[in-house]
Amino acid sequence: MNRQIVLANRPEGLPTPDNFALVSSEIPDPGAGEFLLEHHYLGLAPAARIRMGASRSYAPPLPIGGVIYGQAVGRVRASRHPAFREGDLVVSTDAGWQEYSVSDGARASRIDASVAPEQVWLGALGVSGMTAYVGLLDIGAPKVSDTVVVSAAAGAVGSAVGQIARIKGCRVVGIAGGGTKCRYVTEELGFDASVDYHAADFARQLADACPAGIDLYFDNVGGAVRDAVWPLMSDFGRVVVCGLISEYGATAPVSGPGWFALLTKRLSVRGFLLRDHEARQADAVADMSRWYREGRIKGREQIVEGLEQTPAAFIRMLQGGNLGKTLVKLTAS
Amino acid sequence: MNRQIVLANRPEGLPTPDNFALVSSEIPDPGAGEFLLEHHYLGLAPAARIRMGASRSYAPPLPIGGVIYGQAVGRVRASRHPAFREGDLVVSTDAGWQEYSVSDGARASRIDASVAPEQVWLGALGVSGMTAYVGLLDIGAPKVSDTVVVSAAAGAVGSAVGQIARIKGCRVVGIAGGGTKCRYVTEELGFDASVDYHAADFARQLADACPAGIDLYFDNVGGAVRDAVWPLMSDFGRVVVCGLISEYGATAPVSGPGWFALLTKRLSVRGFLLRDHEARQADAVADMSRWYREGRIKGREQIVEGLEQTPAAFIRMLQGGNLGKTLVKLTAS
Repeated sequence: MNRQIVLANRPEGLPTPDNFALVSSEIPDPGAGEFLLEHHYLGLAPAARIRMGASRSYAPPLPIGGVIYGQAVGRVRASRHPAFREGDLVVSTDAGWQEYSVSDGARASRIDASVAPEQVWLGALGVSGMTAYVGLLDIGAPKVSDTVVVSAAAGAVGSAVGQIARIKGCRVVGIAGGGTKCRYVTEELGFDASVDYHAADFARQLADACPAGIDLYFDNVGGAVRDAVWPLMSDFGRVVVCGLISEYGATAPVSGPGWFALLTKRLSVRGFLLRDHEARQADAVADMSRWYREGRIKGREQIVEGLEQTPAAFIRMLQGGNLGKTLVKLTAS
Repeated sequence: MNRQIVLANRPEGLPTPDNFALVSSEIPDPGAGEFLLEHHYLGLAPAARIRMGASRSYAPPLPIGGVIYGQAVGRVRASRHPAFREGDLVVSTDAGWQEYSVSDGARASRIDASVAPEQVWLGALGVSGMTAYVGLLDIGAPKVSDTVVVSAAAGAVGSAVGQIARIKGCRVVGIAGGGTKCRYVTEELGFDASVDYHAADFARQLADACPAGIDLYFDNVGGAVRDAVWPLMSDFGRVVVCGLISEYGATAPVSGPGWFALLTKRLSVRGFLLRDHEARQADAVADMSRWYREGRIKGREQIVEGLEQTPAAFIRMLQGGNLGKTLVKLTAS
C-alpha cells in the first residue's frame, strides 16, 4: 500500500495537524512513458502552504483529499519511461507527501550519489539550491562588492543564496530568528554578518550591518522583516521576491512597502518561481555540484522519521523552528 | 532683471500659492563654458513637487529661497560655450522657473524648430516624450499585443506612452479623470479604450476594459488608481513606476500593494528616472521626431501667460486640472 498525507480541510492562518489526514491507497502502476518512484526522503517547502489555500495562485488550489505538494528522492521501482530505469536514484519535484509516486519524468531527474548523499539532492543540490541559484544570479544579478541581504538565512534557500553570493564576491548579511541560526550562518556558512529579527532593535542592528545600504535583497519572508529592509535599499537596488513565509497564513490582506522609495531610488522588485526557469537546471546542477564538492556550498538537513511526522515538521518549519532543509525519512526505506 | 519663482516655505500636502514667492535678481553672466538662455516657455512637471519637500529623494531638497525646478525652451543670448551660439534655440532641463538661466550645456540641447514649434520641445519632443520613450520601451519592454495600461493618460507623459505603445502594436487602455480627458485619449490620440477613475465603478470598468489582464502598467499616479490596477496584472506582468502624483503631497506614509500577487504572478516593478538614461537621448529624439512628423505622436499644450501664473498652473496640474503639457509663456518673449 501507498500511505499518503492529504488535505483534510483548508487552514486558516498557520496550519494545524487536523488540516491533514493519513490515508492509504494502492501503489499505482506506471503507464506508458511513466515510472514508479519509491520515496526515501520527502523535502518540505513553505510553498506547499500556498496550495493548501482556497484561492488560485500560480497553480489551482489543491482539492480537499489531494496529496500535499512536495519533493522526494528515492529509487525507481518500475519503469515504462525510456530515460529512467529500475534502480535509478531520482529526485522528483511533484512527488507529494506519500511513499510512492508515478512520474512522467517532466519534473524529475536522475541524481549522482557520488557527488552527494541522496538527501542533499532535496536541499543544496535540489529545488532549494536551484531556487537560490536562479533567483540570486538570474533575477538578482549580483555584482562584486554588492551588499546582499537574505531573509530566512538559515533556511535551505537562504543559506544557499548567501553562500553563492559570497562566491560571487558580495558582502552578505543574513537575517534569521535567534542566536543559534545567526551564529550558524556566520560561523558555519561564512556570511559576513547576521541579524536576529527577534531583537528589539532589529531595524537599527540591520542598518548597522549594512553601512553602505543594501544593493540586493533576497526575500523569503515578506512582512515586518521586509519592511525593515526597505528603507535601507540603495539607489538602483534590486529585490528578489522568492517567498513570503510570514504572509502565507495571513487572514487579512497584507500591504507592501510604499512606492515613493521605489521611484526615487529606482528600485526593481521582481517575483519569481523556479518552475519558469527549467532551462537553467543543467547550469545550476553543474555549478552547485562543483561548489558542493569544493566545500563552498554547505547545507544542513533536519530530518524527522516517518511519514506521519510530516505535518508537524511542516508546521514547525513555517514557524521558523528549523535550521537548514527539513526532510522526512520514510521508514519503509 | 531676471524674475524668478522661488520656494518661500515647504508645502504640506498640495502646495498653495503662499509656498512660492516672486523675486528679481540680476541677469547672470555666463562663465567660461557656459551660456545664457532667455526663456520663452517654461515646462511644468509634477516632479518639481518632490524637490519642494524637506527630505532627500533622488536629489537634495530645494533650499528655501531656491528657484523651483523646471525645464525651459528659449534663445541663447550670450555664449562662452563652444557648442551653443548666440541665437540658437535651446531646451534646458535644469532651467528653473525664471526668465533667464545659465547652463553649462550638460542637460541642454539645440532644437530643430523646423520639426516642431519650440513649445513642443518641452512636451512630446521634450522631457515628457523622452520619459515616455525610455520608460515604456527600455523599462517596460512592451511586446506586440500586450495590454498596456497607463495612468494620467491625458497628461504629457501618459499621452506619449499610449501613442508609442500603439505604434509598437499594443492594445492601450488609458486611465484619466473625467469624460473630456477620456474622450481625448481615445478620439484624438487613438487609445483603444479609456476609463474614468472618478467613476463609482472604476475598478469594474477597468476590468471590463482589460479582459485579458494587464501585461504592462505604466504608473504616473500611484495610490488608489494603482491599487485598482494591481489585481488585474497578468502573469509576468511589468509595472513601470514613473510618477506617483497622488502621493507626493501625502502627510502620512502611503503603503504599496501586497507582494503575494507579485510573487505568484512573477511580476516585475521598477522605478526609473529619465536622468539615468541620457545615453538614449539621441535615439529618443530621432524616433519621436519622426513619429511626430508622421502625425503618429500628437500632444496638446495648455499654456498660461506670465511667470506670475506659474504656481497656480502648477497646483492645477497636480490636482488633475490640465490636459496635455502645462506650459508657461513668458511675456518678455
